[in-house]
Amino acid sequence: MTLAPWRSPLSRALHRNRSLTYARYLQLATVRADGRPANRTVVFRGFWADSNQLKFITDARSDKFDQIQQQPWAEICWYFPKTREQFRLLGRLILISAAQQPPELLQARMQSWQDLSDTARQQFLWPDPKQPKAEAEVFSASNADPAQPPDHFCLLLLNPVEVDHLELRGNPQDRHLYKQLDHPDDQQWSVQFVNP
Amino acid sequence: MTLAPWRSPLSRALHRNRSLTYARYLQLATVRADGRPANRTVVFRGFWADSNQLKFITDARSDKFDQIQQQPWAEICWYFPKTREQFRLLGRLILISAAQQPPELLQARMQSWQDLSDTARQQFLWPDPKQPKAEAEVFSASNADPAQPPDHFCLLLLNPVEVDHLELRGNPQDRHLYKQLDHPDDQQWSVQFVNP
Repeated sequence: MTLAPWRSPLSRALHRNRSLTYARYLQLATVRADGRPANRTVVFRGFWADSNQLKFITDARSDKFDQIQQQPWAEICWYFPKTREQFRLLGRLILISAAQQPPELLQARMQSWQDLSDTARQQFLWPDPKQPKAEAEVFSASNADPAQPPDHFCLLLLNPVEVDHLELRGNPQDRHLYKQLDHPDDQQWSVQFVNP
Repeated sequence: MTLAPWRSPLSRALHRNRSLTYARYLQLATVRADGRPANRTVVFRGFWADSNQLKFITDARSDKFDQIQQQPWAEICWYFPKTREQFRLLGRLILISAAQQPPELLQARMQSWQDLSDTARQQFLWPDPKQPKAEAEVFSASNADPAQPPDHFCLLLLNPVEVDHLELRGNPQDRHLYKQLDHPDDQQWSVQFVNP
């Protein structure tokens, strides 16, 4: 698999903004069952193996889990404050849960669990999201096992087909549109330099 | 009109993050005509008059203009880096274009145009977005008139009906859900303290 042409500017942005922890936070838009959009911050967890798919994690008890099962299309919006540039990546999401999957994806899910901090793992043992707030003790009732994720821990992959890169520095601004061509096996992309 | 109960924590977040220019940037998710989501960064321009409606601006030549006309529901996701908190606001968008509107909205549109910097106004005279990049001279061919916005300059109002406020500081984190009750004339809201 060759790197998509947007990988190089994205790597550069990640590198130049590396002093900001939150430069790895981005906003993931999905669509609710009733057709209204949803939008929340998620943490970028790197690329899956040698693919162009971005890794995130999620909890099967969250609203987005159900949304993604109904409508796998998503757009992430990723703003880098230091270099003043934005990447929008439109693509399909793939949920990797505890259920049967190709072994390499199950392995990736396990690895993502093991890569988490203790604090992040612990959050998956918290009581159900959006229910009336439980007593403080409930949140520390048991310890997460680094060797075994709970069933509701999911790896989430985004497979982009369009990328819109806007650089706000400069007047006029620079904008590049990347589109995956019709034959996804080829992993070919078009690139256009366009008006911002 | 009384202030909605989420206005106070949002004001506090804006104040505590005021040293970061980009704390006024947030991500706006809408839905495309084909049902796939779209997501981009926009700049918060304050509240409209004494309402609970957030102001943004947009260009009628942008994709979101068409999206909003077909599906006015949107969710903004607003992450405040310094205080590590997120606001998600779900609501309907209202486009205020040059076409006939109640005079107070046309006046608000004019005021938003006048409040812009020269640089920001100039961008509305740039050639059509997403077309092949024009020569540099085209971007500075004429000067924007501070007294008269071009027809494609739009004010955009978001009227939230649900607000999800997550504070990442603290373990466990604090999360409050605000929902507008069924009688919008009353402007009554429910507030729930829930599991993160």
